[in-house]
Parts: sequence; structure tokens; C-alpha cells
Amino acid sequence: MAKGSVIVLSGPAGSGKSTVRERLIARNPDFRYSISDTTRKPRPGEKDGVDYGFVTVEEFREGIAAGKYYEFAEYAGNYYGTPVSQLVPFTDRGINVVLEIEVQGAMQVRAKDENAVLVMLLPPSFSVLESRLRGRGTECEESVQRRLAKARNEIEYFMNYDYFILNADGCIDECVRQLEVIAETQKYRTKNNSDFPVNFLLN
Amino acid sequence: MAKGSVIVLSGPAGSGKSTVRERLIARNPDFRYSISDTTRKPRPGEKDGVDYGFVTVEEFREGIAAGKYYEFAEYAGNYYGTPVSQLVPFTDRGINVVLEIEVQGAMQVRAKDENAVLVMLLPPSFSVLESRLRGRGTECEESVQRRLAKARNEIEYFMNYDYFILNADGCIDECVRQLEVIAETQKYRTKNNSDFPVNFLLN
Repeated sequence: MAKGSVIVLSGPAGSGKSTVRERLIARNPDFRYSISDTTRKPRPGEKDGVDYGFVTVEEFREGIAAGKYYEFAEYAGNYYGTPVSQLVPFTDRGINVVLEIEVQGAMQVRAKDENAVLVMLLPPSFSVLESRLRGRGTECEESVQRRLAKARNEIEYFMNYDYFILNADGCIDECVRQLEVIAETQKYRTKNNSDFPVNFLLN
Repeated sequence: MAKGSVIVLSGPAGSGKSTVRERLIARNPDFRYSISDTTRKPRPGEKDGVDYGFVTVEEFREGIAAGKYYEFAEYAGNYYGTPVSQLVPFTDRGINVVLEIEVQGAMQVRAKDENAVLVMLLPPSFSVLESRLRGRGTECEESVQRRLAKARNEIEYFMNYDYFILNADGCIDECVRQLEVIAETQKYRTKNNSDFPVNFLLN
């Protein structure tokens, strides 16, 4: 049986990545969401081991030193990281594990795991992104500008990703389907089946 | 619009690649079969411009010198080659062009066109291949042995291909579907959409 893939999903705020990821997981038993560790405090309603693994700064640093993390990054004074234990036991059983992480973490994955699949979710254009962020009506102008500046930076990493998916308005299900076929085709990659030729000749 | 892909389909005699390719083309208007040039004589029923472009050795050599061929190879004293004119006008319009070629030609494609997609079609095992070749009942033992030796050689190029598709008995439609999704996901590859970021920011 082919192993599952590590699928990194990135995209600017307003790209819809959480919605796409949630729907993907909800309708596919062979996909799993990786739960990150973080040193930030839980927000109301967040549960340890469900939304994040909440750890102390000391615990996180010990984890880094011990090679616990597949990737990690620091944002706004807090650590975020993906424990290896969230990946290998699942991919070994053919489960695809989805990491919803920022560009910084994705580039670590790119450098260390050539079999990981990097997918960037994007709105059709910058102006669509802008109107989505304003349309939320929950963010002040300064926050909108900050997110737009971040998106401008993120798109510069486009070519470091393997695939991109276009999330036009009302296209969540089509995005999920595209992510499913991207994951499916990883099973047909020769590099993920390097033991095939030997088994072929012996059987 | 994303360009179409050049899809190289290889596989040993008995892998079913002609059947898979024919069914793929028959049911997809956005797939096209590339018609090779050859210097061998037409067999009964073969038509110039349909099965092959039948050319003289002189014409073929002039074509090589003029850069006419995307890939070419010599088998059993005859040239076979894919004219560039069979590819670019179609891929530019979003059509996927399927090349059914041998490992030798596929390796030329690998070296010169990083966007081409190389797919190897294989039976589940060597013993299945052997029984299929014998089951045809049309080939002498010497011919069977020659084809098996060739298959043993071909499988050594497995890792030089991007994808492989397993053609178990009775699975032609599933093979066609897998080839379709492999082709589909090429449209989502960032490397095939390098102009996206600039257009994104300008719109």
C-alpha cells in the first residue's frame, strides 16, 4: 500500500484555507488534520489536543532540541510547530496528513522532506482578496492593510510550492475536489513507490 | 488558461498501453494522440497521417538536422520520431498530447522538457506480464522471451518516470481515470503557471 502524503496547505488570510481543509477532512476518512503545538495561551473555546497542543516555552524549546518537530516557527512572540508524532504514524497507514501552516514553516518542509506536497490556496486576484477582507467587516483598516502586505509577501513564494488552487467565490467544493485529486496522484508517483520494481520482478 | 501537457506513456508489451491510450482519447476531447513519423514501411491497413507520418530515411535525417523532432529513436533499423508540430499547437490550446513511446525516447523527453509528464503503465507483476504474453497465443517462445527481457530492462527506468499506473486485469477504465487525474493535476502545478503571481497582483 502506498504511504499517505504530508500535504502542506498555505494561503493568505481570506483565501479560505480553513474552510477548505475542514470540508476535506470531514468528507474523507483517509485525510487527517495535523494538530500543532503552540506556546500561545488558549483562546476561549480552544481545547488542548484538539485545536492545539498547548505547551510552555520551556517544553517547546526542549522539543526543538530533541528533534520533536517536523517544522516550527515563531510568530508574534509565540512558537508553533508540528510534532513528528502527528505525521509518521498516520502516513505509514496510508493517511494523508494536512498541515495548515505559514510560508515560513512550509519552506522548512520544502528543504527537509522532498515527498511533502506543498499547496497554495489563492483567491483569483489581489483585488478579490482585498474585498473579501473588507467584507468581513470585523477588521480595522490597519489590520486589513497588514494582511494585504502579508499576502503580497506570501505570493512571492508561489514557485516554491508544488501546486496552487484557485478559490473563486463559491468554489469551496471544487477546491476540496482538486486537493483530493492532487493527493490521489501522489500515490502514483514513482518516487513514492521506489520499492515497486524489485517487488515487480520477484512476483 | 493553463497549457495542455505532453504526456509520455510507456510500458512493456502486454501492459495494455495502446488500449488505455485509445480509450483515453476516445472519451476526452481535450486529449490528443501524437502521430509519429517513421521510416518503416506501412503495414496493411496503416494510413499515412493517421497511424504514422511515413517518410523516407533522407526526409527523416533532414528533419533531425532541422530540429523538426521533439524526440526520436531508432529501432530495428527504422527511425521513429515525434514532430514538434504534433505538440505545441495543441498544448498551447490546452490540449493534452499523449506520446506512446519507448524508454529511449522518453529519456530524451526527460532531458529536454521538464514540464513533460512521464507515465509508465505496468502489470502488477512480472509473472502476470508473462502469462499475458503467452495468453495471446500469437507469439513464439523466442518472441515471448525477447519481450520479457525487454520488460526487465524497461522497469529499470521506473524511477526516471514521474508516475506509474498499475494495470491489473480488467482495470482499463480505472487506468484511464488515473491518467485523467494525473493530467488534471498538471494544470494546478505552479511550474506550469509561472505567470500567475504577476497577474494576481495586477488584478
